[in-house]
Amino acid sequence: MSAPKYKRIEQALLARIAAGEFAPGDPIPNEADLAEEYGVTRPTIGRALGALVAQGLVERRRRAGSRVAVRAAVATRLSIPLVREEVRAAGARYGYRLLAAEQAAPPEAVAALFGLEPGGVAMRTEALHLADDAPWQLERRWINLATVPAAAAAPFEAISPNEWLVRAAPYTRIGHRIWADLADRDAARALGVRLRAAVLCVERTTWMGDAAVTQVTMIHRGPDYRLSFGDAAP
Amino acid sequence: MSAPKYKRIEQALLARIAAGEFAPGDPIPNEADLAEEYGVTRPTIGRALGALVAQGLVERRRRAGSRVAVRAAVATRLSIPLVREEVRAAGARYGYRLLAAEQAAPPEAVAALFGLEPGGVAMRTEALHLADDAPWQLERRWINLATVPAAAAAPFEAISPNEWLVRAAPYTRIGHRIWADLADRDAARALGVRLRAAVLCVERTTWMGDAAVTQVTMIHRGPDYRLSFGDAAP
Repeated sequence: MSAPKYKRIEQALLARIAAGEFAPGDPIPNEADLAEEYGVTRPTIGRALGALVAQGLVERRRRAGSRVAVRAAVATRLSIPLVREEVRAAGARYGYRLLAAEQAAPPEAVAALFGLEPGGVAMRTEALHLADDAPWQLERRWINLATVPAAAAAPFEAISPNEWLVRAAPYTRIGHRIWADLADRDAARALGVRLRAAVLCVERTTWMGDAAVTQVTMIHRGPDYRLSFGDAAP
Repeated sequence: MSAPKYKRIEQALLARIAAGEFAPGDPIPNEADLAEEYGVTRPTIGRALGALVAQGLVERRRRAGSRVAVRAAVATRLSIPLVREEVRAAGARYGYRLLAAEQAAPPEAVAALFGLEPGGVAMRTEALHLADDAPWQLERRWINLATVPAAAAAPFEAISPNEWLVRAAPYTRIGHRIWADLADRDAARALGVRLRAAVLCVERTTWMGDAAVTQVTMIHRGPDYRLSFGDAAP
């Protein structure tokens, strides 16, 4: 079975845009002219253009007709999955090991984020997420006990702080930072890499209203760990 | 001036959710009951709940009333800015230096992506993006000449491949991968870091229909370079 008619028109227009016959910002001939040129009906042309609009390649403007879209910025979107789903999506068996859970004085940046008084403590957890028993992610987390007091007594041996927080503590805002670093001694041991190997760090902070809930740094082996994401163009 | 009435109700409900009185998945009392409890009108309660819905913290269901939202996954969204805008947003003067532009045989993965015959070539560019004259990003790029033949003669000394492609070559799909690596000799020299320093690599691939347009790896110094993003919870 051959492709539907509109699909072939879509491909033909795509090829003309790719060849530069219609450049970004250029108008595209009107539907009546294209219908005549390709010997098809106007609804068929409309459907082909609609498919290009849906892909973000063509813009329709009410009075000015269609033109090739101009992308001022290569903004894109990513979603960072929960580690358990990520491991499963990779076809591996998920595992979890708690390395530490204690109340402690956090570093200055976290104390400021949590609005702690001098000497104030927060909940510190460290956990290892495993894929087929091999280290996948080292999770270093601080939880704000002023916002989530129940974290002090949560059963983190049984449930990871990540999943416990999803159930126990809603959030209204979330922020991320990603950077590359060299593995320190503890990270190298936990992840099974050499000291000063490259590691990918993903830091996530969540807030509830104006109060910080938690800040976690998720550490992965580089360069074999790759955070992948993609979607249709906006 | 004190906060509007609905705002105070919103904060009060937020505090009750934070305290665990209403946990994720729990129903929230109906508007009439809340209106009586707080001594306000139902529209005020409706507005407070609406604000919590807008933040993704409360879900309204047609017949079942409102409940605290359950977040099954900490999915989030990121937009990666164009390097020029990123440098300017950091308050620095943007600069650009072309290091290489030539037709060459790409590595196997890129050749496969571009659908090249054995011995086929693509356009290779290497460029350095600067912030206040200091290295900010090393850009290593391959451009598919079958898709964008004009790239062979583009004036990359004057305009970065990034910006040239935004103007010349539309795309319909985009994908990203992020990982941490150690700087090789060339990257270390270009970025002004030690050999085997940590670097953050962001790879972007764009397609037009089924044809790959370009694949670029953007390399940044770690750990001082941080890809930051955040937004309201979905």
